[in-house]
Amino acid sequence: MQPNLATNVAIRVHDKPFSWTVRVYYEDTDTCGIVYYANYLKFFERARTEWLRAVGFEQQKIADELGLRFVISRVECDFRLPAKLDDVIDIDVRVVRVGSASMVFEQAARRGPAVLATARVRVGCVESNTLVPAPLPLQLHAALEKPTEFHV
Amino acid sequence: MQPNLATNVAIRVHDKPFSWTVRVYYEDTDTCGIVYYANYLKFFERARTEWLRAVGFEQQKIADELGLRFVISRVECDFRLPAKLDDVIDIDVRVVRVGSASMVFEQAARRGPAVLATARVRVGCVESNTLVPAPLPLQLHAALEKPTEFHV
Amino acid sequence: MQPNLATNVAIRVHDKPFSWTVRVYYEDTDTCGIVYYANYLKFFERARTEWLRAVGFEQQKIADELGLRFVISRVECDFRLPAKLDDVIDIDVRVVRVGSASMVFEQAARRGPAVLATARVRVGCVESNTLVPAPLPLQLHAALEKPTEFHV
Amino acid sequence: MQPNLATNVAIRVHDKPFSWTVRVYYEDTDTCGIVYYANYLKFFERARTEWLRAVGFEQQKIADELGLRFVISRVECDFRLPAKLDDVIDIDVRVVRVGSASMVFEQAARRGPAVLATARVRVGCVESNTLVPAPLPLQLHAALEKPTEFHV
Repeated sequence: MQPNLATNVAIRVHDKPFSWTVRVYYEDTDTCGIVYYANYLKFFERARTEWLRAVGFEQQKIADELGLRFVISRVECDFRLPAKLDDVIDIDVRVVRVGSASMVFEQAARRGPAVLATARVRVGCVESNTLVPAPLPLQLHAALEKPTEFHV
Repeated sequence: MQPNLATNVAIRVHDKPFSWTVRVYYEDTDTCGIVYYANYLKFFERARTEWLRAVGFEQQKIADELGLRFVISRVECDFRLPAKLDDVIDIDVRVVRVGSASMVFEQAARRGPAVLATARVRVGCVESNTLVPAPLPLQLHAALEKPTEFHV
Repeated sequence: MQPNLATNVAIRVHDKPFSWTVRVYYEDTDTCGIVYYANYLKFFERARTEWLRAVGFEQQKIADELGLRFVISRVECDFRLPAKLDDVIDIDVRVVRVGSASMVFEQAARRGPAVLATARVRVGCVESNTLVPAPLPLQLHAALEKPTEFHV
Repeated sequence: MQPNLATNVAIRVHDKPFSWTVRVYYEDTDTCGIVYYANYLKFFERARTEWLRAVGFEQQKIADELGLRFVISRVECDFRLPAKLDDVIDIDVRVVRVGSASMVFEQAARRGPAVLATARVRVGCVESNTLVPAPLPLQLHAALEKPTEFHV
């Protein structure tokens, strides 16, 4: 039964936060001297992509072999502290909900202990060609059931 | 009295939606064949910048003459329909709240009548050098009091 | 005979420079307070795209109807003067060579009379799916033969 | 004597190529399904920044402590093969010329043995506030004199 599965997965994955480190380059900053707000969405996506790779899935393979893509349907993001050139930022990824055709992530961008930004991101699964919603791959559901240890 | 002023302004500006047209170029798209989600935040910002210019303010001048910058403190964005290369997109700007040191905008990205994305964006005013919150320029409050007709 | 056609076209088009105006937004700048160097390549592409539209071609239609895409094979770019937030920049487009499967453009980014950057860009035509070089669409050759007046 | 120093440095550094690995994310691709051409300039810059860090210099510190920035004055780039989502790309950095106020880099983007793009980039040193050309920091000249082993 999908909903229960989803709930269990969410709890278990939530216990094991995944983190991905990014560096701030010129391309990320703006004339205010800080990281431009839209670029946090790039950082958050890089970390989700690496989380997905860590649980065994590459997006291009999913597209090629299963004809599926992930698209973003909703983002809430709070920008708390500015990041600057050369900063090293850890991007946390927590799956907080796994539905039949979507996942919800909670993410944070941290510079050491300082939280720079937090986000809640809803990602939907769609057919590559039509962009019509589609169930998450069964293999992904299965992977999320197993306890995962991240060595990144 | 600032709060009342703010409320009045908000209502009046809300009655006069401002719109700015953008075109989708290669730079905006991704390998899904649609506009990459972070790039809507660029479109929304372009339209807010042009709204600000339409009410009489250029951001570089505000920085140079008043030592103030606008930074984004919160974004909520719903992505409803995909946009593709060559699409012409109208970006609506509505000020829904003007506080002493911040403004809240409601924005929509439309392709003709089709709403592609909507957003609620909170913008804070800060001192350029310190990035510490600062009151909105009085001139901006004053400008928002006057009825504005946009000819764009 | 293609080469002669190409040469003639090049000369005629060269006589009628096309220009497209862009505005510098926060997204374009970096922490140096100027337009980030890679973003000029976006400006140059927007202008080439609008030039193509002005001579009757939309890239998405070319992809959908002819199965062809344009890709960049070489760029030379000189950055002469910095551009800043809110600057209005005119991007010139001149076709200086039309081959059987490629075109060469000379472009300039100007703020009024001041030349900010110049570029020479070689664009190749490829099949969408394979990215294998393909002849330029006959319709494009035909369009380039006609005298073109740009009203932009 | 600067010129001789510069020549010696260039030769020695040229013998020890530096390489930095980047991953292709959605943000880097376009609707052609490949890395958008301007984004290679971001990859090349990330690698130059990491090369600079490897020889002991952080750009933000150079700006804060010496009041100097590096700006790009010329780029030549050949795009040879397309890169796709999830590709792992090695970006090579070779200093081929060190002048009094500028450096020239030769760079390549490789996916394994396949060369995707090559570039020649001229970087100038400027005063942060005025953007007027300035001599390269003496410390950088000194660092380039020492044999450097990169452990990255």
